Amino acid sequence: MKRIAVFRKVLASNDALARAQREQLDAAGVLGINIMSAPGSGKTSLVERTVTALKRDYRIQVIEADIQGDLDARRVARLGVECVQINTQGDCHIDSLMLQSVLPQLLRSSDFELRHSDFPKLLLVENVGNLVCPAEFQLPTHYNVTILSVPEGSDKPVKYPLMFLKSDILLINKVDLLPYVDFDFRQLGRALKRIKPELPILRISTKTGQGLDRWLFWLRAKLKTTRSIHRFHRFRRLESV
Amino acid sequence: MKRIAVFRKVLASNDALARAQREQLDAAGVLGINIMSAPGSGKTSLVERTVTALKRDYRIQVIEADIQGDLDARRVARLGVECVQINTQGDCHIDSLMLQSVLPQLLRSSDFELRHSDFPKLLLVENVGNLVCPAEFQLPTHYNVTILSVPEGSDKPVKYPLMFLKSDILLINKVDLLPYVDFDFRQLGRALKRIKPELPILRISTKTGQGLDRWLFWLRAKLKTTRSIHRFHRFRRLESV
Repeated sequence: MKRIAVFRKVLASNDALARAQREQLDAAGVLGINIMSAPGSGKTSLVERTVTALKRDYRIQVIEADIQGDLDARRVARLGVECVQINTQGDCHIDSLMLQSVLPQLLRSSDFELRHSDFPKLLLVENVGNLVCPAEFQLPTHYNVTILSVPEGSDKPVKYPLMFLKSDILLINKVDLLPYVDFDFRQLGRALKRIKPELPILRISTKTGQGLDRWLFWLRAKLKTTRSIHRFHRFRRLESV
Repeated sequence: MKRIAVFRKVLASNDALARAQREQLDAAGVLGINIMSAPGSGKTSLVERTVTALKRDYRIQVIEADIQGDLDARRVARLGVECVQINTQGDCHIDSLMLQSVLPQLLRSSDFELRHSDFPKLLLVENVGNLVCPAEFQLPTHYNVTILSVPEGSDKPVKYPLMFLKSDILLINKVDLLPYVDFDFRQLGRALKRIKPELPILRISTKTGQGLDRWLFWLRAKLKTTRSIHRFHRFRRLESV
């Protein structure tokens, strides 16, 4: 009982900090995307594909979270965008307190400093590979993207419902492996119908590039909204001067 | 700081309970195996294969742990062995306190009740699909089996070192998919050499059955040791009468 009470307090202070950070992102015209999945479902590959496709049109920054090591951050940095590694030192998720150690610096950095520019900015946050804990911690990011790769099996929403409930879009990755694995889209559909019937689902392959156009279409639409929110913030700032 | 102190207390009381439960298993001649992996790496398939291969030679019981649902328990129960489902209701792992709610009942049940029989018994515990948290909680089981499936990628030990450090045998599953995925055994070997060079590694496919003979050989050897320990316990009991 005591343990649950402590956990609730931790969650409440995390949520408050996340809301404050969200306002900083909005004021800076940044769209934050939190990418979650089991280990090895293709989070870093999705980040690489997304950065490659969008880096000419948008300023992009990436936060890579891992228990240990900086393998992924080095992969992403090769693409020429600013990338920061968070090591959770054993923790199974990232929370807004961990982001607080890197977020102000990122928002001040040269890439993002043009706060008054009309140029939408994108912050990709790759969470720790885990289908359980990351779903419990609110981040300042605007949308949760969940990846499920087909070798993991179609029974995952039944077993990890919170992750799918908290998701704003579900990417079914590694569809190039469909001929070699048992993945039942009907089972998946039945489970998601109970958990979150309105969840958009895209079939993609970060390896072959299949379906990524629709993912980028979704992301560009959200970036347009970010631009509008940013304009509204700028307008409010100008009014208050 | 406070949070860490609470966590340490939780771990210490968990370990004490796990040690007491381990003694109960030893006294009853039961070999406990804790199976851990990311979601969808093939834990339940390994349990099914193992039960099918060994159920004529050993008494087997299975504990299935999931956040929610009883999909896996129903799969295993079809094979005609006693199977209990634990729902962690959101928790990302199982601990010995959760096992306490089912273990005494399992050890009393008709399959296992012949405490003085010389027949080795096997308890398979399928942990929650997660490469982080389950490694932190000591269970009464004698060995930790970690499964890594090749679609997850060969970089996992670098990112989740504790899981591989705590492991007593590593099963590389879904090797039938090797022609279609990028999996670098040299990268895996390099990482494991730093973390736990003595860790035995077996390549298996729970789908095709490849390599399972070596897994069963490993398990049968451990069951022989259980038999010796059990004989020692019986001898001690007889002496004390």
